[in-house]
Amino acid sequence: MKEQELLAALVETAKVLNDTLEVQEVLRRIIEEAKTLTGAAAGSVFLVDEATGDLVFYTTSGGADARLLQTVRVPMEGSIAGEVARTGKPLRVNHPERHPFFFRDVEEKTGFHTENLIAVPLEHRGKILGVAEVLNKPGGFTEKDVEVLSTLAEFAAIALQNARLYERQRRLFHESIRALVAAVDARDPYTAGHSERVAQYVEWMVRGMDLTPRERATFVLSALLHDIGKISIPDRILLKEGRLTEEEFRIMQTHPEKGVEILKHVRDLADVLPGVLHHHERWDGRGYPFRLSGEKIPLQARVIALADTYDALTTDRPYRKGLPPDRALKILEEDAGSHFDPRLTPLFTNMMRTRLGLGHEEG
Amino acid sequence: MKEQELLAALVETAKVLNDTLEVQEVLRRIIEEAKTLTGAAAGSVFLVDEATGDLVFYTTSGGADARLLQTVRVPMEGSIAGEVARTGKPLRVNHPERHPFFFRDVEEKTGFHTENLIAVPLEHRGKILGVAEVLNKPGGFTEKDVEVLSTLAEFAAIALQNARLYERQRRLFHESIRALVAAVDARDPYTAGHSERVAQYVEWMVRGMDLTPRERATFVLSALLHDIGKISIPDRILLKEGRLTEEEFRIMQTHPEKGVEILKHVRDLADVLPGVLHHHERWDGRGYPFRLSGEKIPLQARVIALADTYDALTTDRPYRKGLPPDRALKILEEDAGSHFDPRLTPLFTNMMRTRLGLGHEEG
Repeated sequence: MKEQELLAALVETAKVLNDTLEVQEVLRRIIEEAKTLTGAAAGSVFLVDEATGDLVFYTTSGGADARLLQTVRVPMEGSIAGEVARTGKPLRVNHPERHPFFFRDVEEKTGFHTENLIAVPLEHRGKILGVAEVLNKPGGFTEKDVEVLSTLAEFAAIALQNARLYERQRRLFHESIRALVAAVDARDPYTAGHSERVAQYVEWMVRGMDLTPRERATFVLSALLHDIGKISIPDRILLKEGRLTEEEFRIMQTHPEKGVEILKHVRDLADVLPGVLHHHERWDGRGYPFRLSGEKIPLQARVIALADTYDALTTDRPYRKGLPPDRALKILEEDAGSHFDPRLTPLFTNMMRTRLGLGHEEG
Repeated sequence: MKEQELLAALVETAKVLNDTLEVQEVLRRIIEEAKTLTGAAAGSVFLVDEATGDLVFYTTSGGADARLLQTVRVPMEGSIAGEVARTGKPLRVNHPERHPFFFRDVEEKTGFHTENLIAVPLEHRGKILGVAEVLNKPGGFTEKDVEVLSTLAEFAAIALQNARLYERQRRLFHESIRALVAAVDARDPYTAGHSERVAQYVEWMVRGMDLTPRERATFVLSALLHDIGKISIPDRILLKEGRLTEEEFRIMQTHPEKGVEILKHVRDLADVLPGVLHHHERWDGRGYPFRLSGEKIPLQARVIALADTYDALTTDRPYRKGLPPDRALKILEEDAGSHFDPRLTPLFTNMMRTRLGLGHEEG
């Protein structure tokens, strides 16, 4: 490519690399863009693992819709990528098998034969995040290729760092919510782990439903938070071993509304409130708090009701042992059309039977 | 600039725009880079406000360390920026005062006279986020300038979108934690709002301390979470109106360790654990849980201890009314060197007097 075409291509590359905040997708794009810009047959990224001090090796499958593959680890000492990561300087190598730092493990594990390569550091604000490599250009790589790959590496490091910061922030939110929800559940030894399990069942369920990725995430988060209102239920009712009085039962039944009270000021949790508020509604309209029936009950609440009831049935309670899974699933099926959405119920019970390795019911 | 120089400059611009995840900083950089690349005297960004349907106008102060300024709002109808936002097409205008959509309010409010301008849409995946404008180029803008600004706008929209996603995720975390902490505090009507207030006092305090921005954020988050272990304290102890027995008191005093139990699996909360665990230690070593003394108590815990005690003293309890602020601050000062860090105490009490508009004590 001519200088001007190269620069125009780099401008496009900058857009491609930055237009995602998923780390895995950034890595995939770095490799594909590096191959295209330098005319290389293959590419890879090595990321510094700060815990172990070695490098994690990523490459892509060939073809138009190349997927990211993670294979071996490479030591910092005695490898070309390690040398680049330690010195922060690019390397262009035409006979890698003669290079003192050539690390044979990768070739042995991938069955790939390296003819020639360039490796450049991925450096962000003075810190080496890893190394980008391109391999096997017919006729060998030029100094111009080193320059182009180095420019790409500058964008790449920024895009990678942004995606890492975003994923860390996402993980912080999810882990914190799970920790706090687990603590609320654990007030009652009989419900310890309940919300986490309900969220897991809902996560399995939504994979088989026609929903957007965003809707799926919302349903799972709503399942995790569905009982958060129990924070506001006093111990004398929440933990009572005997039968609740009518008044106590009424207070217990306020937990969906208390949950909404707690979460309603969080702007970006608005989407999960339907599940929190309506997970005790029943298909026949005899649930609470609003006696909604049928499809007036939000879909996420109908899904959570199945998972919530399944978990309640299968775990021990003060007054009875938990039921075996197959028995609990039959109860859900018996209550399809009265308690539960009759269309969703078989989807849920069949999914659970598959997950649990149980035989399916005959239609 | 020549084509090649321009492209090289655009490559640099792509790096500059993407190397931050703060929305305000992205806007500032868009404006400064747009001015530099086109040779304009001024620049601005208009962001679509989805709630109101109009445009929010941002510009920068002049000079090398230009700051971002937010001034007027501009209607979608009857303004040049609005026209660009609605059609998604760039505009180059040489006599804006003759343009049917020229919106005079901005000029009147800023005292700026527009000679000529280009406005291009900030579009991300088919959605118009806003408009970037450059103003007043001697001799007028060329079609090449429109092309350059349009390329910049493509990066700019990606950078803006990434920063928005990041800030939304950060806000979601903070708002969710505050909502859940508030619900835990509210189990006891006498501690409703306690953690939020303690976090506020700590936020004021850390502004005057020699800490990194990250440390400041950690101290405030630790203050917000310091009593989270109270989730695990039974109502009969937490809400007891009379004096606690020795056994009840021992259980109450486990709340710092219970807090660590809850949060310890959240990888990125490790930094806040010292404040949670040690906020009831005393400078003289007579606190709990570990009877640490002096500087062995982590700094964040010594800061939280002051804010925590101040809030406890100034709010009503079952057995007494809350003290007036000046009285509570004097108690903290009397306890400097016994309960509290003697160096931090006057910093805290003087800061609080300033914030509350009270007179300062004579040294």
